[in-house]
Amino acid sequence: MSTIPLILDVDTGVDDAVAILYALANPQFEILGISTVAGNQTLDKTTHNTLAVLEYLGRPEIPVAAGAAAPWMQPLHTAPQVHGENGLGNVELPAPTIRPQPEDAVGCMRRWIESCDRPVTIAAVGPLTNIALLLKSCPNLKSRIERIAIMGGGAFRGNASPVSEFNIYVDPEAARMVFASGVPLLMCGLDVTMKAYATKEDIDAFAAIGNRAGQMCADIFRFYYDFHMSGVRGKLPGCAIHDAVPVMALIHPELFHGEDAYVEVDLDGVYTRGCTAADFRDRGRLADKNTHVILDLDRETFIRQLQDAAARLC
Amino acid sequence: MSTIPLILDVDTGVDDAVAILYALANPQFEILGISTVAGNQTLDKTTHNTLAVLEYLGRPEIPVAAGAAAPWMQPLHTAPQVHGENGLGNVELPAPTIRPQPEDAVGCMRRWIESCDRPVTIAAVGPLTNIALLLKSCPNLKSRIERIAIMGGGAFRGNASPVSEFNIYVDPEAARMVFASGVPLLMCGLDVTMKAYATKEDIDAFAAIGNRAGQMCADIFRFYYDFHMSGVRGKLPGCAIHDAVPVMALIHPELFHGEDAYVEVDLDGVYTRGCTAADFRDRGRLADKNTHVILDLDRETFIRQLQDAAARLC
Amino acid sequence: MSTIPLILDVDTGVDDAVAILYALANPQFEILGISTVAGNQTLDKTTHNTLAVLEYLGRPEIPVAAGAAAPWMQPLHTAPQVHGENGLGNVELPAPTIRPQPEDAVGCMRRWIESCDRPVTIAAVGPLTNIALLLKSCPNLKSRIERIAIMGGGAFRGNASPVSEFNIYVDPEAARMVFASGVPLLMCGLDVTMKAYATKEDIDAFAAIGNRAGQMCADIFRFYYDFHMSGVRGKLPGCAIHDAVPVMALIHPELFHGEDAYVEVDLDGVYTRGCTAADFRDRGRLADKNTHVILDLDRETFIRQLQDAAARLC
Amino acid sequence: MSTIPLILDVDTGVDDAVAILYALANPQFEILGISTVAGNQTLDKTTHNTLAVLEYLGRPEIPVAAGAAAPWMQPLHTAPQVHGENGLGNVELPAPTIRPQPEDAVGCMRRWIESCDRPVTIAAVGPLTNIALLLKSCPNLKSRIERIAIMGGGAFRGNASPVSEFNIYVDPEAARMVFASGVPLLMCGLDVTMKAYATKEDIDAFAAIGNRAGQMCADIFRFYYDFHMSGVRGKLPGCAIHDAVPVMALIHPELFHGEDAYVEVDLDGVYTRGCTAADFRDRGRLADKNTHVILDLDRETFIRQLQDAAARLC
Repeated sequence: MSTIPLILDVDTGVDDAVAILYALANPQFEILGISTVAGNQTLDKTTHNTLAVLEYLGRPEIPVAAGAAAPWMQPLHTAPQVHGENGLGNVELPAPTIRPQPEDAVGCMRRWIESCDRPVTIAAVGPLTNIALLLKSCPNLKSRIERIAIMGGGAFRGNASPVSEFNIYVDPEAARMVFASGVPLLMCGLDVTMKAYATKEDIDAFAAIGNRAGQMCADIFRFYYDFHMSGVRGKLPGCAIHDAVPVMALIHPELFHGEDAYVEVDLDGVYTRGCTAADFRDRGRLADKNTHVILDLDRETFIRQLQDAAARLC
Repeated sequence: MSTIPLILDVDTGVDDAVAILYALANPQFEILGISTVAGNQTLDKTTHNTLAVLEYLGRPEIPVAAGAAAPWMQPLHTAPQVHGENGLGNVELPAPTIRPQPEDAVGCMRRWIESCDRPVTIAAVGPLTNIALLLKSCPNLKSRIERIAIMGGGAFRGNASPVSEFNIYVDPEAARMVFASGVPLLMCGLDVTMKAYATKEDIDAFAAIGNRAGQMCADIFRFYYDFHMSGVRGKLPGCAIHDAVPVMALIHPELFHGEDAYVEVDLDGVYTRGCTAADFRDRGRLADKNTHVILDLDRETFIRQLQDAAARLC
Repeated sequence: MSTIPLILDVDTGVDDAVAILYALANPQFEILGISTVAGNQTLDKTTHNTLAVLEYLGRPEIPVAAGAAAPWMQPLHTAPQVHGENGLGNVELPAPTIRPQPEDAVGCMRRWIESCDRPVTIAAVGPLTNIALLLKSCPNLKSRIERIAIMGGGAFRGNASPVSEFNIYVDPEAARMVFASGVPLLMCGLDVTMKAYATKEDIDAFAAIGNRAGQMCADIFRFYYDFHMSGVRGKLPGCAIHDAVPVMALIHPELFHGEDAYVEVDLDGVYTRGCTAADFRDRGRLADKNTHVILDLDRETFIRQLQDAAARLC
Repeated sequence: MSTIPLILDVDTGVDDAVAILYALANPQFEILGISTVAGNQTLDKTTHNTLAVLEYLGRPEIPVAAGAAAPWMQPLHTAPQVHGENGLGNVELPAPTIRPQPEDAVGCMRRWIESCDRPVTIAAVGPLTNIALLLKSCPNLKSRIERIAIMGGGAFRGNASPVSEFNIYVDPEAARMVFASGVPLLMCGLDVTMKAYATKEDIDAFAAIGNRAGQMCADIFRFYYDFHMSGVRGKLPGCAIHDAVPVMALIHPELFHGEDAYVEVDLDGVYTRGCTAADFRDRGRLADKNTHVILDLDRETFIRQLQDAAARLC
């Protein structure tokens, strides 16, 4: 069976770290490189965290490229209350000795895609700034992209506002461009990711694995879990590991349920800026369906997959 | 126990007819008058239907006032596919002999409110055009309005678009004004009204009551039920009797569950125009909570209430 | 020659006072009544000032009706820096003994129009809140309105923002409705009204007339002139008597030059909210031309007309 | 005196050809390269025309890089009615033998700027798509850009709509980003460029120069002049050579008059999308002044400068 050549675009971030971990642990993926973007934290922190996680998990050879430090048309919003001041739940991993690529993210992604012998899959789990820049500045690459699996949006709910999700809210213009790009899209929004939660017991089980990867997860989840329990977003049964969802959905579609829709990102309105309106109807649509929207998952298998992945690492 | 002085604002409409029937059958309400608006059908049809329903159900003395024939800022959208060409599921009730008031809806509502010895409740189950006009042109009346119970909107779903509900979608500017008016609001949107459905068996039970009211319901539901079963809006277990929900919630709050929120009507965006974004959070809100949003109900008691109401009429 | 039955809609205001004066002094007008709106100052002040001006100029019998205290969708902006805290350049006219009509402006305008034996002309020189309410709540009256002469907007300039004029900026939604109403419109925007200025010498000439009317003009112009000279809006040769322009254009079209256009009021954008985009092209227009846009005038005759009018009064 | 290292960003285009000609003929400029963008015509045509003009005028060594084929967020609008189907007034220059750079415009511009020993000036006379992409994907380059001289916008007028100019209208999001970039801007909009017109006699004088450059101008102006005379945009005294204005303003500021302003590109509204609202006020501004807006010029010297430039070429 051939592997999936994968680019991860991340704003690491607690759940981004778990998404990286999951990709590293699954040989179905051939990771071409990881690009970083500002979102959960500023670009310097998300890049630092990405390098630190890779080195800590024993994969320093994977190239990391720093991308956009700010969204397209608005100032950057970050989420220190969710991910901590350092973006990793205030857990200090050993300082990385590896460095980002000299070239920026768009240049590196372009090179990674052009030098790959088959179409490349992108898992984009931060604001879509880098991805929009790539598609806009190198439109010819679209045909060499197999699919973009996105953590972002929500057909029926928001978190940054009542109807918009954080990653889309941070850069709505970039998101609109990506959804209008014509590239096949897999959207894992809050509809499914809020069901992809880890309970206190699940977190304890990560620690019980007894290796660095398991311990890292348990450690970085602590602050993140407390935020979820703080009630700021209502009563939740655990902490949502949003960013691992699209990565897992690429290799285990049988664990997820979704439907095709036409998704359009709205740009206006105090609350609706960044709303990913998803039209599941066949009639009355504005345009052809452009996205497979994941709506549900098998939570327990999802968590076990993550734990098994951690166990396979150092 | 004192009665609730009530103004019904309707765009009759199949479910509006049931809302009227329910109000007529419950002596807790003192119906001051009914105002009509364009929405489910054009104003002439919604006014005609309102008169016909009242006379058919034996209450020709209730004054009816015709209001706005078009929304504030956009052309009228109607819903013949849902309510039929005549607005009553293409059922022909006997032509009414009663006539609307010579004065228009805003003038009549003003008079009804001013001449009432206590604050008046409004149940608004069509586009909010009349209500916005009333509040705008007679702002002093606000203190004499107890509450406005609205069928409209949805915190987590739409029908006219993925994120906007028909009544709000037809006249978003009017809706925005009403939600910003400061008058206490009870919003019964799609969150609850899509659960307020009648099954085939429920409809048969209306017919089995054996009086005009029960038969009228069974007849007008036929076309409406077929629309709901057509799959245009996905798989539904029955036809939603939206407009009866806010009327019942006024006298039987124990059958419903809701939460307070700040609701703002967004005006922009292809899909988000008319979206009633509901912010249930205490922090981060744009403004104080202005609406009690009903989210759930006891469906079987809801249906039985309607059937009991029909049984009490002629 | 038959007279023009006229309703003045004002937010008095220094230049509104001059517009009233000019209408009073010209027997071509039959003034049916004056309605007031919030704009240059709050409604209580603009109503007070209107009554005070009428009584001071010896015409207490003209009915005055108070209208909207706030715009359709946004809080009220006033212009104390232009018109003074009292709205009349801080000049205190004798307190009026006359009172506004018991009925509100929309009710009175409706009555005035319905009881007139021929189509009525409206000169609207404040925010268009009342006019929009009238057209919306009584659409049947449109056929009985000959024309609406508006002070507002600007094809090529703004003052409240770089591209929007104060009266339109205060209530853009109302303006949009009036421009879309289908009633014949005469727009006197900043294109022409900034050329309708009075110099220091012109103001002295008002005082030199030697009657109450001339003295009132000279007095109320003082604060207003100083504002114009303050440089806040750039170098100006005098103070612009905006509101008198549409009134004069109704009876002396030969003093003005204009062109037909399709005018649409834009509602969005930080600067463009309230912009009256005027499309003079025959091709490519969004819709048929709906407005005669006045662009130029004979300034010296304009000023002399005003002075002659003042001289004809007490 | 040191030369100005210049990048020209063009959508050639009749007046773009003249802008190129003027830059070629003036040794104050050191032309680092020319980037092309879609606008007046599609990218393939604007690139072809740019190559053809360079080779025809004897400067085949100047590198040309093809850039964005479409705007950021909307489909491409072109202007064949103004520039002809081939973009050069349907004049067929000899087919160019030179080729565009293998790298795209953003990559080339980046290289040109990084390898220059002093800050680079950009003259951008098409839609700002390439420039926005450059600033967004390489934000560190901003400090190495001396100034961007733009043909686009208009403080007091539009042509694509009543209040928006073609280059901005084609890509409003890109324009908004450039105006918000913090790089010093010189805006030559319709305020000045509609005064930068060539009459029939001026065009004859180009032909009379008697060389290829003069003849090329005379030839390509023919179709373009006829468009301007067609009355589509009202009565004009000649054809506007928009794109030459910012290039000349860089080396002959004494021929132009302008004022500083805060310019913001509005994105919404049927007519106001693409409006460059220019706030010249010191108070009340949204933000600090970001643009020097050219408003007037010495037309006759402008035309003579162009003719002298043509005469200096082959």
